[in-house]
Amino acid sequence: MKEKANEDALVERIQRVFRTVKSRSLILPAGDDAALWRPTRGHETILTCDWSLEGTHFLRHKHPADAVGWKCLARAVSDIAAMGGQPRCFLLSMALPAALAGRWLDEFLEGLRRASKALRCELAGGDTTRGERVLINITVVGEIARGRALRRSGANPGDAIYVSGTLGEADLGLRELRKARGVASASDAARRKHLYPEPRLDLGAWLAKTRLATAMMDLSDGLSTDLPRLCAASGVGARIEADSLPATTLTNPREAQALVLHGGDDYELLFTVAMKNVKRVPGSFRGLRLTRIGEIVRGRNVVVVNDGKAEPLRPGGWDPFR
Amino acid sequence: MKEKANEDALVERIQRVFRTVKSRSLILPAGDDAALWRPTRGHETILTCDWSLEGTHFLRHKHPADAVGWKCLARAVSDIAAMGGQPRCFLLSMALPAALAGRWLDEFLEGLRRASKALRCELAGGDTTRGERVLINITVVGEIARGRALRRSGANPGDAIYVSGTLGEADLGLRELRKARGVASASDAARRKHLYPEPRLDLGAWLAKTRLATAMMDLSDGLSTDLPRLCAASGVGARIEADSLPATTLTNPREAQALVLHGGDDYELLFTVAMKNVKRVPGSFRGLRLTRIGEIVRGRNVVVVNDGKAEPLRPGGWDPFR
Repeated sequence: MKEKANEDALVERIQRVFRTVKSRSLILPAGDDAALWRPTRGHETILTCDWSLEGTHFLRHKHPADAVGWKCLARAVSDIAAMGGQPRCFLLSMALPAALAGRWLDEFLEGLRRASKALRCELAGGDTTRGERVLINITVVGEIARGRALRRSGANPGDAIYVSGTLGEADLGLRELRKARGVASASDAARRKHLYPEPRLDLGAWLAKTRLATAMMDLSDGLSTDLPRLCAASGVGARIEADSLPATTLTNPREAQALVLHGGDDYELLFTVAMKNVKRVPGSFRGLRLTRIGEIVRGRNVVVVNDGKAEPLRPGGWDPFR
Repeated sequence: MKEKANEDALVERIQRVFRTVKSRSLILPAGDDAALWRPTRGHETILTCDWSLEGTHFLRHKHPADAVGWKCLARAVSDIAAMGGQPRCFLLSMALPAALAGRWLDEFLEGLRRASKALRCELAGGDTTRGERVLINITVVGEIARGRALRRSGANPGDAIYVSGTLGEADLGLRELRKARGVASASDAARRKHLYPEPRLDLGAWLAKTRLATAMMDLSDGLSTDLPRLCAASGVGARIEADSLPATTLTNPREAQALVLHGGDDYELLFTVAMKNVKRVPGSFRGLRLTRIGEIVRGRNVVVVNDGKAEPLRPGGWDPFR
């Protein structure tokens, strides 16, 4: 007799995998009607959620299950990094075809558990149901000292624009993975960045704590989509230099140039710094390159300067509605 | 040129609908990388999330879009009521087919906005994407004074078992709706309870504040599924009297008897009270009937007594994995 045990059994299995992660502030983890969590005094709570849908955000026959597990949490945690905060706990909502409740689920949970441990973000609860495809929604709760959160809306004309790391590598990794046969492995840097992105938590926290950044966001949909969003939120324009962009060297310069502007999924940080503070921004932070790519300008135009010629920066990044 | 404007436009449309709801503690609502929220001093945070999936949780050609909007929030808020807490804000994750981005979305958002206002739970953010079917995931953040949250695990042998309201009406409403042609309207009490459930926030808060209840949960999957869950969490058994159950009078006694045990989606509260406090539990709370249906016993068996004969209570409620 197949009975209500099915859903409860799945929940118990998820809980078992996460039992090894030590709790700091979770009073009542998964298993009751809801989770109970104790906020830190003097802190604000950061809330974010992210879809990871089979067919839209990952391909089941291309992406290893453990990478799906890692990335679904890492993507959401990147939004916490983008505010300068620290992740605390997460809720996992999952719909799963019955055929995947065995090995695929085990590998998925192992990737998720590794991310949970690495990012210090505990499982607090969730909701499971049946589905024809894998549907994942992750909610992450983070914290930041009161008044310190970095928003998209703080950029001022004259501010320098920076990005962390190298842009376009995750998209390059996706292209490689699409060309490859069967399930991909993280055999090179680009694929690794696509499969196992690392949210820039330390950099984000440092920029918030030092108050160096005036505005910040993470690059999830590509610079050409995300920079205009930051500019719109701040009511400003921007001028970036094509030559200064930290393009990947893992492919030919032509492909690298397209990828650096439009490649999504990098989860690097995009931030602005008042000109008087530019000298305080190091060339790299804990081994992560920081590159000045242009400046915030008056008006609403976002342009990219290429060979001395300024052209409008047209969004070419990833939008699921396109 | 269809560009990144699509996803941003959808987000802006959602924000526009919710702009009329006044903010209490949201510092930074939807639009940035994440939402910022200020927790109340001396309170714990309650976190819960719930799927509402087309085909699993609702039928697009049967359920009015505004009821889908109301119910997806009400269901999640019911988990907050089940802990004795108050909802504060929510995140809306939504995947939507392009064809539904017009009138269907408008009606859905109107139902969601009404629930948000009635339940005093503000939109804090979310994530939107494209999907072949409507996928909704709601995360609700609630609060409760420190140490006051009611859990499933506090029931003791000898405690009386109570339920609020009438059981089985929502399931009856679903049966009527399935039989009816086209999109349903809330033409009677049963359909209304199915389409527009009302989380028992006041009752839950009162039971937590007075410390009258020893354990509590909401009835989402039916008494025969949920009571064993409460018992398992508390490490106890239960004995309920079939004759005492608050069955609906909207159908014949035979159907009502099945519905009262197994009907899901009622979102009434199931709670236990120490025998010494039973006299303090009124027959109704603010017009909502409270019915004593049995008692907690030692051991692990959950039985229902019918015509003097005790039989195991077998889960017959709704489980998406069944």
